[in-house]
Amino acid sequence: MHTQCLINGRPGDSIAVSDRGVQYGDGLFETIAVCDGRCELWDRHMQRLLAGCERLRIPPPEIAQLAAEARQLVHDSERCILKIIITRGSGGRGYRVPETAQPTRILLRDDWPEYPPENSEQGVRARLCSQRLGTNASLAGLKHLNRLEQVLARMEWDDPAIAEGLLQDHAGRVIEGTFTNIFLVQHGRIVTPMLDMCGVAGVMRAVVVEFATMAGIDCEERVVSLDELYAAEELFLTNSLIGIWPIQELDNSREHWRAAPGPVTRTLQAAFHRLRYVNG
Amino acid sequence: MHTQCLINGRPGDSIAVSDRGVQYGDGLFETIAVCDGRCELWDRHMQRLLAGCERLRIPPPEIAQLAAEARQLVHDSERCILKIIITRGSGGRGYRVPETAQPTRILLRDDWPEYPPENSEQGVRARLCSQRLGTNASLAGLKHLNRLEQVLARMEWDDPAIAEGLLQDHAGRVIEGTFTNIFLVQHGRIVTPMLDMCGVAGVMRAVVVEFATMAGIDCEERVVSLDELYAAEELFLTNSLIGIWPIQELDNSREHWRAAPGPVTRTLQAAFHRLRYVNG
Repeated sequence: MHTQCLINGRPGDSIAVSDRGVQYGDGLFETIAVCDGRCELWDRHMQRLLAGCERLRIPPPEIAQLAAEARQLVHDSERCILKIIITRGSGGRGYRVPETAQPTRILLRDDWPEYPPENSEQGVRARLCSQRLGTNASLAGLKHLNRLEQVLARMEWDDPAIAEGLLQDHAGRVIEGTFTNIFLVQHGRIVTPMLDMCGVAGVMRAVVVEFATMAGIDCEERVVSLDELYAAEELFLTNSLIGIWPIQELDNSREHWRAAPGPVTRTLQAAFHRLRYVNG
Repeated sequence: MHTQCLINGRPGDSIAVSDRGVQYGDGLFETIAVCDGRCELWDRHMQRLLAGCERLRIPPPEIAQLAAEARQLVHDSERCILKIIITRGSGGRGYRVPETAQPTRILLRDDWPEYPPENSEQGVRARLCSQRLGTNASLAGLKHLNRLEQVLARMEWDDPAIAEGLLQDHAGRVIEGTFTNIFLVQHGRIVTPMLDMCGVAGVMRAVVVEFATMAGIDCEERVVSLDELYAAEELFLTNSLIGIWPIQELDNSREHWRAAPGPVTRTLQAAFHRLRYVNG
């Protein structure tokens, strides 16, 4: 049995209850796809992690050390997930952060989620959540550990045929899925919601924007309304594990959207396929 | 050396990294003042904890068991803090909660914070934070573990002469302090912000409302603007540990408010003093 978890470099599976990660969700995480022992999009995940540490003023981890620990955990795995959590560690008084924080570094290897291949091929069913996302410019874009909104949103449905729930902010703007980012195709161009007030700026979201640019597809990041969602030519979801899932069907109580995966989605999926399986 | 921490009834000081408390801040907490081995306002803390579990759909802890464990931890303490954390435990897939959650029960004994007695007697200096609170009706009022907003707000000042920072929501409504609730006195009546969209509904806040009613002081819970704050006759802060602190001075970049502790604050402080030191 190989090690499943390293905490500050040592095998283990628990952290101090005094850790600010436990007490306040005071930290960040990354969820990384591992293919043939290699961490996909490693540099991008590390960039986002460091940017998050800077914004939350958590002393950044040493990337060479993280990379060595990641290798130790996953080098023998054909397919798994590597989750990295960085917390501010213990200390401080109440919410006040310690003068010299000693962050906790958690690397966790997890089984690859066996999503049905139909999700990529034919697309998924999604729903609109009634849970809304609170807005906060200081936290927007970060993959931080305060995830109760996502937990509550995910509680809204049990039907295994529904793969994802979409979330709006309080003003009704469309933001993202519970664990994915969303893209619309309008007049052959792709549009994805701006994440300056809430949402997680996914690594795969950025990659897809680059795929589009390379393929000569215009891309716009802006405010997206619910009406636009239901008027889209194509809709698709992205994250680091799933890559790109077309949305086949989107429901809420009043409206219904349905489409077969379209040409823009297929072009971007092909680019993702080359990234994961050919250039890997 | 006595036990400082019980986890699911057993002495220990760490929890599984797979715990949803660590992964998502998926849980709740209570911070309870202990005086002469007795947990102050125990029933109210338990009521709030159970209400929070119901709203987050976490199976509630057994209160008799919690009480026995609390007694075991703090019975020999003249003065300390008891922190109780209930998480949803491990399991589930991603944000999706497990079908049968097995919550984690953490009881943590901590030193009593030695706040200067002047804080109660002469009042404290407070500031206005630039950090704003996101709104979310599903989480409003709960003492949940997603506390990054408070951590960021508390980072805004270092001056030890400033005891608290006040927070507004995005619309500019006054909500609370980073670790306290706020009350205003207007025309001899007390006013405290409504917490239906954000904020923590403090146990001491509810107690102070009852003190006021018993003392024949009118009390109103409603939207509070910043202008009202600066026009208040008296301002004070509450929480379970500090009881009631008058605000002596409130600053932001443009305005300045200053007052000696007023008669309404003093009346309520006297009621709190009887609760803690006489009827205790």
